[in-house]
Amino acid sequence: MRAVDIIEKKKQGQVLSKEEIDFFIKGYMDGSIEDYQMSAWLMAVCFQGLNFDETAHLTKVFIDSGDKLDFSDFGVHIADKHSTGGVGDKVTLVLIPLLSSLGVACAKLSGRGLGMTGGTIDKLESIKGFNCMLSEDKFKNQIKAINAAISAQTPNLVPADGKIYALRDVTATVDNMSLICASVVSKKIASGADIIVLDVKYGSGAFLKTKEEALELSDLMIKVGAKLNRKIDAVISSMEQPLGNCIGNSLEVIEAIEFLKGNMAEDLYDVTLEIAARTLMLANLAFDFDEAKNLIDDAINSGRALNKLKEIIEAQGGNKNVIDDYSLFDIGKNKYELKAQFGAYIKNIDALDIAHACKLLGAGRDKKSDKIDFGAGCVLNFKTGDKVSKDDILLTLFYSDNINKERLNEAIEYANKAYKFSVEKVDKIRVV
Amino acid sequence: MRAVDIIEKKKQGQVLSKEEIDFFIKGYMDGSIEDYQMSAWLMAVCFQGLNFDETAHLTKVFIDSGDKLDFSDFGVHIADKHSTGGVGDKVTLVLIPLLSSLGVACAKLSGRGLGMTGGTIDKLESIKGFNCMLSEDKFKNQIKAINAAISAQTPNLVPADGKIYALRDVTATVDNMSLICASVVSKKIASGADIIVLDVKYGSGAFLKTKEEALELSDLMIKVGAKLNRKIDAVISSMEQPLGNCIGNSLEVIEAIEFLKGNMAEDLYDVTLEIAARTLMLANLAFDFDEAKNLIDDAINSGRALNKLKEIIEAQGGNKNVIDDYSLFDIGKNKYELKAQFGAYIKNIDALDIAHACKLLGAGRDKKSDKIDFGAGCVLNFKTGDKVSKDDILLTLFYSDNINKERLNEAIEYANKAYKFSVEKVDKIRVV
Repeated sequence: MRAVDIIEKKKQGQVLSKEEIDFFIKGYMDGSIEDYQMSAWLMAVCFQGLNFDETAHLTKVFIDSGDKLDFSDFGVHIADKHSTGGVGDKVTLVLIPLLSSLGVACAKLSGRGLGMTGGTIDKLESIKGFNCMLSEDKFKNQIKAINAAISAQTPNLVPADGKIYALRDVTATVDNMSLICASVVSKKIASGADIIVLDVKYGSGAFLKTKEEALELSDLMIKVGAKLNRKIDAVISSMEQPLGNCIGNSLEVIEAIEFLKGNMAEDLYDVTLEIAARTLMLANLAFDFDEAKNLIDDAINSGRALNKLKEIIEAQGGNKNVIDDYSLFDIGKNKYELKAQFGAYIKNIDALDIAHACKLLGAGRDKKSDKIDFGAGCVLNFKTGDKVSKDDILLTLFYSDNINKERLNEAIEYANKAYKFSVEKVDKIRVV
Repeated sequence: MRAVDIIEKKKQGQVLSKEEIDFFIKGYMDGSIEDYQMSAWLMAVCFQGLNFDETAHLTKVFIDSGDKLDFSDFGVHIADKHSTGGVGDKVTLVLIPLLSSLGVACAKLSGRGLGMTGGTIDKLESIKGFNCMLSEDKFKNQIKAINAAISAQTPNLVPADGKIYALRDVTATVDNMSLICASVVSKKIASGADIIVLDVKYGSGAFLKTKEEALELSDLMIKVGAKLNRKIDAVISSMEQPLGNCIGNSLEVIEAIEFLKGNMAEDLYDVTLEIAARTLMLANLAFDFDEAKNLIDDAINSGRALNKLKEIIEAQGGNKNVIDDYSLFDIGKNKYELKAQFGAYIKNIDALDIAHACKLLGAGRDKKSDKIDFGAGCVLNFKTGDKVSKDDILLTLFYSDNINKERLNEAIEYANKAYKFSVEKVDKIRVV
């Protein structure tokens, strides 16, 4: 077998055998197939696609490329959640304390952000002392002790995806359903959870632009999960405007804490409720959606979910006082307030533009080696459908002294561009 | 500008600006754009294509990536020829002596073979002592002295094509019209010739499979040449069966010598005549095809073309006695004769299968570093349209002691598979 023949075969739109997929992925991992051959193959896949069997097998080869976590000795369901990524997406930060306070064991492996804004790990690291680099033992023991742990994915878990994702990112080969499915599902399965709920986002701020694409991807991931013997459920949610009100690392953690204190942005609540309810039902802890909703609301209202977050922060070495004292967070000491020029309804707040603005201020990274400014970001005062009056503050940008005037102006331009107004009443967006 | 955005743009089927093409090719040459980004872009080009302006500009960027030969002080037309490559294609070996004996200054830069069989340089190196690594000065001086020189292309000439071609070869991105055009036309223009005749081959043994593709490529190359101010003409020729009777390095040189002695395979004569006649007309040395044909036949019949080959061999350090003593060549000392199983007409001799057989015996290389066995190859006794009787020897394979039984059997299998027979009379193939 030769790499070039497998590339050619896929280029011609032919179906690859299991042996060919094995050869290509294993060869890439052992260095006998080069980056430039993998990237050519990935591009051919973007044009010709992979069929269901190819996708399921690719996912399996990914899983088998490294270590697998095993919770079978725990004797309970282990839940995990994954979001395909969006702007202002802090669902994990509220969902894990919430579910674990309700008795669901949560083994959450997260990533750092590449692209517009930080990932869950970046956000948590804005809590001083918070350690996301847990060993496998520490990870398991913490779940045994307090029902939840959140850790950065180790490079030994699905290394094939790690290596290939880094390549996709710089070769314009990210947006293929099968490649996304193999990447997401392999990581979740190798992480050892048996209940997996996926949050598949679409819209301006997500890399899937339409609801149809999100449905297609969800369907594919659920089927591939079933083929590989895992219960996967999926929620489809809109990412036309940012989720919640805060974007940026420290700012999103603060919003998550406020959420667990009962101060909830409606859209963030809707998505969290949907994912949490499905997980509770899959774990047989709630009979139906209404029962799940009651449990969830009670966990928040009673303060148990907030208390669980405190436990998680403490268990992972973070300063739990952040829960009550937000001044312990780094927040950009400079502010810029974007004001409405006239009275109108907000027709849309483009999530991608807002993310661009935050990234320019330091909230995201271009390269793996870039350092994130935890304190950079923005807070939205209104969302789509809201009515604003002239001079209302639409959003506030937060940034450090490192940001020069030119960069700030560019960020303001993006923020400005994000807003579309209407003189007529605009319906609120149903996020889920 | 970012490489990944340019890849994405081409992936989306958008037209790249001159600046973007410059950025991408120059970035690749200076190392700021990686192999894996180039290969992803090349694959996107294979699917989305380049339009005429993109192709012409890519060709120009290729030319500008390195040195250019300049013969403007010679005061005469300088001719060059290029074949898109085929099995048994020894046209250069007969054409250059022929044209230069007729007063056309020939500056021929050739390549080594990658793929099935050796290139012109490999073939010439089967003549002991023949030096194809001429410096620019030596190359020019030899053309001044004897009207012809044949040299391996230096890496300083169109280095962008050199680097990109090596990548295309291992990433299944060879077969795109625009990439082929830029590769061929840039090399020919940078070589300094002002009269360029291209031999565009199609069929089993060529990488263009149909006549339509060959016409499309010719048309593109002629137009790109015109846009870059060079006279390019093109001949379309068939490569369904091997050209001439010999395949392999030493064997093809012997066939070329025999040709110049007047023992000419019909198809090889037809192609050579067509290319030579067009060159003579472009150089204003013949008024029309008939006059050109008379000149050509006379150069061969008078022995002047053969004599010119002797001069070239001598000028480049080769042993000119090979002209009269073929025992000076390495020829595989073992023979295998493939015989006809029954009487019939030959319907086809698949060029690719024959090439495969010869490559297995050592006539070609897989990797640049592979060593070629000059003496390996085969001689065909019949061509398409010929009638054979049972036990007639169809072809003879030549190979060295290094070839084990298994490899020989595989080669024989390919040779066998190449032949298709018919009980009814089959027309000879018109090659041009």
